[in-house]
Amino acid sequence: MPDLGLGLQDIRDAHARVRPHIHCTPIMTSQLLNEQLGVDLYLKCENFQKVGAFKARGACNAVFGLPASVGIVATHSSGNHAAALAYAARKKGLEAQVVMPSNAPAVKRAAVLAYGATITECEPTQLAREQALQELVKRTSAEYVPPFNDLRVIAGQATLAIEIYDQLENVAIDSLLVPVGGGGLLSGCSLASKLIRPEVAVIGCEPAGADDAQQSFYSGQRVQLQAVNTIADGLRTSLGDLTYPIICQHVDDILTVSDKEIIDAMRLVWTRLKIIIEPSSAVVVAVIQANAERFKKQKIAAVITGGNVDLDRLPWV
Amino acid sequence: MPDLGLGLQDIRDAHARVRPHIHCTPIMTSQLLNEQLGVDLYLKCENFQKVGAFKARGACNAVFGLPASVGIVATHSSGNHAAALAYAARKKGLEAQVVMPSNAPAVKRAAVLAYGATITECEPTQLAREQALQELVKRTSAEYVPPFNDLRVIAGQATLAIEIYDQLENVAIDSLLVPVGGGGLLSGCSLASKLIRPEVAVIGCEPAGADDAQQSFYSGQRVQLQAVNTIADGLRTSLGDLTYPIICQHVDDILTVSDKEIIDAMRLVWTRLKIIIEPSSAVVVAVIQANAERFKKQKIAAVITGGNVDLDRLPWV
Repeated sequence: MPDLGLGLQDIRDAHARVRPHIHCTPIMTSQLLNEQLGVDLYLKCENFQKVGAFKARGACNAVFGLPASVGIVATHSSGNHAAALAYAARKKGLEAQVVMPSNAPAVKRAAVLAYGATITECEPTQLAREQALQELVKRTSAEYVPPFNDLRVIAGQATLAIEIYDQLENVAIDSLLVPVGGGGLLSGCSLASKLIRPEVAVIGCEPAGADDAQQSFYSGQRVQLQAVNTIADGLRTSLGDLTYPIICQHVDDILTVSDKEIIDAMRLVWTRLKIIIEPSSAVVVAVIQANAERFKKQKIAAVITGGNVDLDRLPWV
Repeated sequence: MPDLGLGLQDIRDAHARVRPHIHCTPIMTSQLLNEQLGVDLYLKCENFQKVGAFKARGACNAVFGLPASVGIVATHSSGNHAAALAYAARKKGLEAQVVMPSNAPAVKRAAVLAYGATITECEPTQLAREQALQELVKRTSAEYVPPFNDLRVIAGQATLAIEIYDQLENVAIDSLLVPVGGGGLLSGCSLASKLIRPEVAVIGCEPAGADDAQQSFYSGQRVQLQAVNTIADGLRTSLGDLTYPIICQHVDDILTVSDKEIIDAMRLVWTRLKIIIEPSSAVVVAVIQANAERFKKQKIAAVITGGNVDLDRLPWV
C-alpha cells in the first residue's frame, strides 16, 4: 500500500500551500541541556508557530486546499487544532465552528475565541466530541476538518519534517522524536522522514497514561482507549484508522513516559532554554531522559509541538 | 567630555573580544502583541544569551581583557552579573568569588554555583554588598569586576546596540527601550546607539519602586536610594558615577512603571511570545503599554535583558 496515496510531492505541495501562512520556526539548542542529557538535541520550536502550535500547518493545508464553494469549516479538538482551524478560516475569510471538551485549558478556549470561531462545549470523551460534531455539521453544512485523521492534515503536519531536514542540512541526525496523540503529526513526519532520510530512526513519544499508540504498535491492531489519564492534554486522543497504518509502516518504535517524567522535562526545558513549552511537547525530552543509554551521544531532532500553557495552573506549583 | 574615553572603536573591539564566548541572540516579534500594543516591536532576546542574561557580554569583555597575571576575579551582584562573571572566569580558567545579597533568587544562586564560583552571602543593601566585597578583595587579592560601574563592563553591554542595528539593518527604528538599574546596559547602549543611529530616541525604563535613574536624570544630580521596592530584582541598584554622566549625555528620557504594570507585561510576553523573561525585562513592554499615545505606530527595538525566573514563585500565581 503506497501510504494511502501520500507521497513526497504531496507533502512538498502542502509546504508550498501553507508557507505563506505559517512561520518557519527556529531550531534551538542548549549546551547545558546537551551536557545533562548526554546527546546533541535539536528542538524544532513549533511553540513559536502561528497559534502557538504545529497544528497551524495541518489546518492551513486543509483550509487553503478547499474549493471556493465551502463557506464554513468545523472540527472538534481539545484546543490547538481548534485554534489552528479558527486561524486558517479567518485567514481565508471563512466561518469556523468548534466543538471543545469542557476540560479544555482556558488558554486554548480563549485563543479559539480570539480568532473569531464559535465554540460548542461537550463532555470530555471522544464519543461525545464526535456526536456533537456530527450534529453541528448536519445543522450548518460545514466542511469537517478532523484534528488528525485526515490526509490533508497529515500532509500539512508532514511539512515539519521537510523544514527540520532543510534546517539541519549538515547534521547527521540519528533519531527523530515526535509526540503522538491521534497520530497526525507522527504519521506525517515519519512518512516524510523515511522519504527524505531513510537512515533516521523515527520514535513516537507518548504519555504512559494514554499509551494506545504503543499498545497498537506492538499488538498489531488499533487499540482505542476509553479512559486516559495524563497531563499532556494534546496527547489524550487515540490513533485513527488513517494514521495507524502509516505509523506501523514508518515508525521504528514508540516509547512511553510517566506524567512525573513529563513535568520534570517540561521544567527542565523552561529553565535551560527559556522557552515555554506545553506538557505534550515535553514528552520528547522526557523520553530521552528515561532512555539515557539508548540515546547516548546521538544527534536527535525533536518536535516541540506547542507552547499553550495555562500560566495560572503550572504543574509544579 | 568625550564619554570618558569610550568610542565606537572601543565598542567594536569589545564585540570582537566577546563574540567567541556569547550568542548573537535572535530578535523576536509577535503580530498579536504588535496589534495589542499598537507598535512594531522588535525584542532583542538576551534571555537566550549565555547564563540567560546580557550580563555575559560585560563580564566576558572584562575578563578576557585582563592581563595573564590575574588568577581570581570577584564581584557583588544580585545574580545575573555573578553568574556571568562565574561563566567568563570558567571559560578563561580563572577562579571566581561572588558576594550575593541574602534575598537573591534561588535560581540565580544555583546558576552561580553551577559555574563553579564561590558565594559569600551578605545583607541585601548596596552598602553591605560593597563592604563584603572589599573584605573579599583584600583577603584574596582578586581583581574586582563591578556589575555595572566599569568601562570594560559598559563597553561589553554596548555590544548589544551594535548587534541590534546590524540585525535590524533595514528597519527605521524610532526608539530604543532599555531597562535601567545600575545603568551599565543603558549607558553602553545609549552611547553606542547615538554613535550608530543618532536619530533613534533612547529611553531608559525603570520600576517606580527604584526610580533613582529618573530622579537623577531630571534633578541633574545623582540620587542614591537607600530603600527600594520592586519585583524587578535586576533593577534595584542605583546609578554609578561612571554610568550616570553617560546616561545624562545620551539618553532622551527615562520612564517608570509600577510593579503591577511590570507583572502584567511579563505575563503578556510569556503568553504571546512563548518565551520566559524575568521581571526586569518586562519593564520595557510595560513602558510601551503605559505610554500608548507616545509610542503609537513607532518601530521600537527593546532589550529583553534576561530569563532567569524562579519558576516556583511566579508573581501572578
